[in-house]
Parts: sequence; structure tokens; C-alpha cells
Amino acid sequence: MTARTLHLNAFLMGVGHHEAAWRHPRTEPSRVTDVRHYQQLARTAERGRLDSVFLADGLALWNNVRHNALAGLEPLTLLAALAAVTDHIGLIATVSTTYNEPFHVARKFASLDHISGGRAGWNIVTSAGEAEAHNFGVERPAHADRYSRAEEFLDVVTGLWDSWEDDAVVGDRAGGVYADTGRIHPIEHLGRHFRVRGPLNTSRPPQGHPLLVQAGSSEDGKEFAARHAEAVFTAQQTFAEARDFYTDLKGRLSRHGRRADELLVLPGISPIIGSTEREARDLAQELEELIIPAYGLTQLATLIGVELGEDALDRPLPDVPVETEGAQSRRKLVIDLARRDNLTVRQLLGRLAGGRGHRVVAGTPERIADEIQEWFTGGAADGFNVMPPLLPAGLDDFVDHVVPELQIRGLFRTEYEGRTLRENYGLARPASRFAAAPAVAGLVAAS
Amino acid sequence: MTARTLHLNAFLMGVGHHEAAWRHPRTEPSRVTDVRHYQQLARTAERGRLDSVFLADGLALWNNVRHNALAGLEPLTLLAALAAVTDHIGLIATVSTTYNEPFHVARKFASLDHISGGRAGWNIVTSAGEAEAHNFGVERPAHADRYSRAEEFLDVVTGLWDSWEDDAVVGDRAGGVYADTGRIHPIEHLGRHFRVRGPLNTSRPPQGHPLLVQAGSSEDGKEFAARHAEAVFTAQQTFAEARDFYTDLKGRLSRHGRRADELLVLPGISPIIGSTEREARDLAQELEELIIPAYGLTQLATLIGVELGEDALDRPLPDVPVETEGAQSRRKLVIDLARRDNLTVRQLLGRLAGGRGHRVVAGTPERIADEIQEWFTGGAADGFNVMPPLLPAGLDDFVDHVVPELQIRGLFRTEYEGRTLRENYGLARPASRFAAAPAVAGLVAAS
Repeated sequence: MTARTLHLNAFLMGVGHHEAAWRHPRTEPSRVTDVRHYQQLARTAERGRLDSVFLADGLALWNNVRHNALAGLEPLTLLAALAAVTDHIGLIATVSTTYNEPFHVARKFASLDHISGGRAGWNIVTSAGEAEAHNFGVERPAHADRYSRAEEFLDVVTGLWDSWEDDAVVGDRAGGVYADTGRIHPIEHLGRHFRVRGPLNTSRPPQGHPLLVQAGSSEDGKEFAARHAEAVFTAQQTFAEARDFYTDLKGRLSRHGRRADELLVLPGISPIIGSTEREARDLAQELEELIIPAYGLTQLATLIGVELGEDALDRPLPDVPVETEGAQSRRKLVIDLARRDNLTVRQLLGRLAGGRGHRVVAGTPERIADEIQEWFTGGAADGFNVMPPLLPAGLDDFVDHVVPELQIRGLFRTEYEGRTLRENYGLARPASRFAAAPAVAGLVAAS
Repeated sequence: MTARTLHLNAFLMGVGHHEAAWRHPRTEPSRVTDVRHYQQLARTAERGRLDSVFLADGLALWNNVRHNALAGLEPLTLLAALAAVTDHIGLIATVSTTYNEPFHVARKFASLDHISGGRAGWNIVTSAGEAEAHNFGVERPAHADRYSRAEEFLDVVTGLWDSWEDDAVVGDRAGGVYADTGRIHPIEHLGRHFRVRGPLNTSRPPQGHPLLVQAGSSEDGKEFAARHAEAVFTAQQTFAEARDFYTDLKGRLSRHGRRADELLVLPGISPIIGSTEREARDLAQELEELIIPAYGLTQLATLIGVELGEDALDRPLPDVPVETEGAQSRRKLVIDLARRDNLTVRQLLGRLAGGRGHRVVAGTPERIADEIQEWFTGGAADGFNVMPPLLPAGLDDFVDHVVPELQIRGLFRTEYEGRTLRENYGLARPASRFAAAPAVAGLVAAS
């Protein structure tokens, strides 16, 4: 194995990432709320020695459930049930900083980290959608406000994780001292958005901090990632764009006193796998034929903020007005894609159906491995966010056929390096911000 | 078996309910954050055919972690990990209505209910503590405000659970219709505390509504229970008090259009079990000798709102000023106990150490079964909230020795009646509030 190791995350979404997956004979749409489905996927990912599984999330019913098998389970709750049947796989949950309280989020991730023995990760999102705002009694907050709140939210959460030093639990039965309260600290946070006293009521997570993951690619998002994220999921259509993004993001780290290897960049890839190129193309074609244009148009409206009718399907994408809120980077990606390849709206829907703007690659396992290797060795990726078009079938195919190819090429592990998600991602365990305080002062304060 | 069946819940708390449990040689205090400990307890409860396990919770570090093995895991996260290793046992989590958003709570319980196949229950609390308020940037809300918010919170949550009718998921692959959106309803809630549009982004829970549990015994608490609760946990020291409470609460139901058997009353019992009376007394004595008076005084301050020093230990409980906020009913219980039995503060601490005001019974399995039978057949209880002094040992003893005695007497099941928590508690599955709407109107609305 080379010194640098590829990292692979399995992005689990219902019965597959392709929007027509639920209509394909190789899926069973009733399984979107079946815990055994997700447990099977997590075990498969672990069998393939993948680093982690990841669950996206939103706080409103996603458009349009009429035509897609959406509306699954809440990620943190589900991942705890996956922790119980796995030993190594990392467990990454999406949780919003806009509609939550930091105390709850700190506690739930600390709990998941304890339950999983150090395998929890948090994909930090700021919830751009209007429908989400309306489930919490507010209007959609401005982009900058969401990021300002996220910044402070993260400071409170990491402070709460640090509030118990690693050696706070003493367990001295004879002396009657369970915890050294001099090593458990109120955080006394007082900021623009939050006032939180602490300490947390759960001891320090095994990883110190559960892994911090981020996926926004706006300017605010990239700066947030450069300051805090340890893994970044990103949608990139071409090698050149991916390399530019990678270079840009890695270049920002030193300004925040961080090394380039303290953040992993994982572009999305939806692999449509066949034992021959023909078989892969046939599967792609089968899926394309199951697309429901009305659904695609709803999705497109979410991505670019413009609602088109079915009469627009066979014309080029019309001009799209500039919007300042919401998922700006994804909007740009979609418009660039349509313009670059001169696509009709129908063709654009087909290109987006596989991964909502993430890259789709159809081919043999060797071909998929070639693409992964090219991006990994060419400075465009530290690994990939794998988005199988069909679940569980597409993840089985990836683990059984692409992973062995990557292992043969020396690009991917054959055994886990460590026990925790951080260890497998090759990331350090953070010290508590309170650990520097001299123990004697702590003991005095406790009396 | 008699027509009326006893219901038993195992209240899981760290390494035991006795405050000195962590110092006893039969426990291992490091297990308070070990998921395998709780999984073992849940399996034991299931082996004993108990109805459910229950986790209490607070949103601040409980006093005083210096002298007790507290600070465990967040209940919903933990219960999902227990669901994964059990098949029948109900899973009841405490979640506050004061420091949460109803959308999150509805979604997490719906998810746990899906994950467990219909075994989720929600112990609704309103978080009286000042330390909790300070973790959420507010001052302690007044008692009446907490209950007014709880009332509206519950209406939103049940509305969200109802927002998908039972038959909303169609799964028509050929026709391209996954869900009949005419059977998925925005709730458009607009109230004093909340504005929530809905619908939920998780389909209807298997139980319709996860079981609603409540434990407040104040006037507001009893009225809330009479309107909404399906099971009530309560602290009662004597048979007469328990029968009065039972009669009072059951008598309130008809005013809300409910039958007496639509709510189960489960007083707490901490059984200190020995194979002889002498052995049980010895265990009680061992535990009493491990009590740390400084810890007991902190607990007493929490219960009655008055801080006493160690110099007060061997004198009677002084007069306690009337307080209007916080856990009023528990305060009255503690003061009554001290006055009735003419206890010194030290003796009072000993009586409270086993269950914080819940009843402690030391004796043989037959003696424990006698007490349970007397209260159950005498109109004081529908079952019990079992609080073992030591965990796991005390739950093993209860399941291996008390449960068979109850089964022999025909008081308790030998096999589960059903698959869901509601079925085992003998409670009906609620219909969706939207189900009355004619399907045709729904279909028109969806177009």
C-alpha cells in the first residue's frame, strides 16, 4: 500500500441515489423505513473496509414524495441502531445548526460516539430551505446569518465535548469519589446566538470530538470548512473542476494554522457498475427510462430555484436569475453542466437523476477504479463519497468488484488501521481545551 | 391468568437506583457509558417478559457527580441501540417539551418506532430545573408556562405523527406513484408557542402514536396525565397514598372522554431481594453503609429546595418553606415521610437513598410478590416501575425470582401478547386525525 491511502465513504440514501431507483426491479421501496435494510448496508460497507457510512438529512418533506421513495429515518437515531450491529465502520449523521440547540447536538453525538466506541461523525449543515424554516416557526434566515450561527454553534458544541477532561472519571469506590469535579468544567458561553453554561452531562466522547464533516461549497462554506472541517463532501463534475476545488480548499488551511492533511476532500461518485461496459450502459439506460419528468422538474426547481413546466423539456435551459440565498454552488454546477454540454432540459434531468449534480460514472469495475485512481493521484481527491444508484445492489457491486480492484492496485486498505473513525481517516484526536489548566487549580476550584 | 394483567417496566439507571450502587462490589461503575451494559439489561427484561424499559433524563449534569456514577447516554440514541438487539421489549425515553422543538421530537420518536417495529414510548417531562434552563440560554420558566407549552407541544407532535395517513405509501412502481400525497397533510399549526407547517418527513409510526407516558404528580401534572397519558410513573410510599392517587387519577379520565383502562398507573418499587429476609436486610445494610452523607444532602436539596449542612444530620428535618416551582409533589412526599416516621435527617437520607422518594421493599421474592399483588389487586396500581438497587444484579434477581412467582400466581404473562408496546400494555392504536377526510377530497387536493 502506498503511504497515502484512499478514503471511501458510503452515502446511504433510501433504496438508491438514482431518483428512479425505487422503480427498478433490483430494489424494494418499502425498505426505506426498514432498519434491517440500513444494517445490511452498513455491514456490507464494513465488509469492504470502507471508512464510513453517511446519512444526509433535511427537516422538511423532500420534494416530491409522490414520485420518489423518500422520507426515511432520522439519522442519529438510525446510526445508533447501525452501531449495534457493526464494529469498525464510521457513522456520519447530518444535523443542522440552524434549527437545533448546541447542548442537544453535543450530547447526542457524544452518546453516539460512546455507543459506537468512537465511530461518530457530524456532517454540519445550515439548512437553506424555506420548507425547513416553516417547520420551526421562522422565516428562512439569510446565508450569512446561518454561517455566523454555525460558527458559534460549533464553538459551543466542541466546548461541551471538552467540558469533561479525559481523566475526569476517577471511579474511586473506597474513597467515594466517582468523578474529579475539578476536571469537569462549565463552559460559560455567552455569545450572539447562544448562552450555555455547561458542563455536558455525558463524559468526553472516545474520539475527543466526533469527526467534523462539511459539504457546503459556497465561499462561506469553504471558509467554514477550512477552519473546522476534517472531511468535505463535494459535488464535482470534471477532473479540472475537482482539482481546482481541492487546491483552493487545501490552500485555505494554512491561514487557519492547519496542515493540508488535516482535511480530506471526498467528491461524490455514483458508480453504475457492469461486468462489461455494455452491461453498465444498459443499466444506466434502464434507470433513465424509469425517470419521471415531473419529478425531475421538481428537483431542478430545488437546485436552481426556477420552476419549469413539461413544455420546457425539449428546449435548452432558459436563463436563470441570480439568487443570493440557498445552495449557490450547486446551482452554478447545474447551470454550467447544461451550458457546457449544450443540453436540453430533458437531457439535463437525465444527467442529474443519478446524483443530483454529483458525478455519475458508468462502466466496469476497472473503469470505475481508473477514474478513482486518476482523481486520487492527480490531486483532485483524498477519497470518494460513494453514491450507489441502487441499494443494496449497487453497494454490493462496489464492495465485491471495485474495492478488490483498488486493493490490488495498492490504493485501499485490506484491514482497518484503527478502532475509531478518526484513526481510519488518519486524523488526530483533539485534546480538551480545558486540559491545559493545571490539575491543582482544578482541584481547588472543585472544593 | 386473570383477566387483568400486571404490567412491569424496568427503570434503567446507570449501575443501579441506590445512590451508593456504584460503590457496591456487585456493580462496575465504568459501565454507565457502556452500551453493552444497557443491551444486557434490555435482554434480561425481555427474558422476564417485562413490558418495557425506561430511561429517565435531565438536560444538565445531575448533582453531584463527584459522589455518584451519573452522566450516562442520551435516551433516544441509546434506545435505538437497544432496539437493535431485542424483539419485544418496549423502549421508553424521557424527552423534555420545554427545551425542544416538536418537529424534532416527532421525527425522532417516529424513527425509533419504525426501528423497533412499534416499541417506542415517550415519557413527557417539562424540565423544572434551573441548571437545565442555563444550558439553553433562558431563565427557569414558570410551572404553568411549562405545562401550557407541553400541552401545545403534544398537539403538534401527535399532529405530525398523523400527518401521513396509514395508507399514504402506495409504492406503485409501474404507475410511478410512491406516495398518495392526498393522504399526506400539512398540519398548519399556529399557536401561542409554536408555528409548524408539516407534514413530517417520516411516514406514520407503526403504533400510530408512540406510547405517551408521564410522571408529574402535581395538579397540573395529573390533569395533563388525565388528558393525554397512557401510562403514569409515580412515587408512592404507602398503600393508602397509592390507592388515593390511583383513584384520583382514574377518576379524572371520564371528564376527558376517556375510559379508566386507557391509562395505566405504575408506582415505583425498588426491590432489595434476598433468598431469605436476613439476606435482603443484609444487602440493604451494606448499601446503607456505603451512603455518602454529603451526596445525600445534595440530593435532598434538589428534592426539597433547602440546603442543609452535615451538622443537621442527627436532628429532625427543619421546617421547609413553601415553594411554588419545581417538583412540588415529590417535595411533599419527602417532608411527609420525615414527619410521619419522625426521622432524623440522616435516617431520612437512608430512606431516600434507594429510590429518591420511591418505595423500597427489602425481602424474599415471595415477599416482593406479596407487595406487588396487594397493591395490584387492592386498587393502587396497574403494575410497577421496577427500580433495581443494583444493575445488572438486581434486575437479574427480579427476573429470575420475582417474575416466576408472579407468573405462578397468574398475575403476569408468560408470553408476550403482541408485537408492539401498545399491544402488550393493552392499549388501542390511535387513528390519524386526518383519516376521517374522504379519500376523494384528498386526491383532489393532491393534484
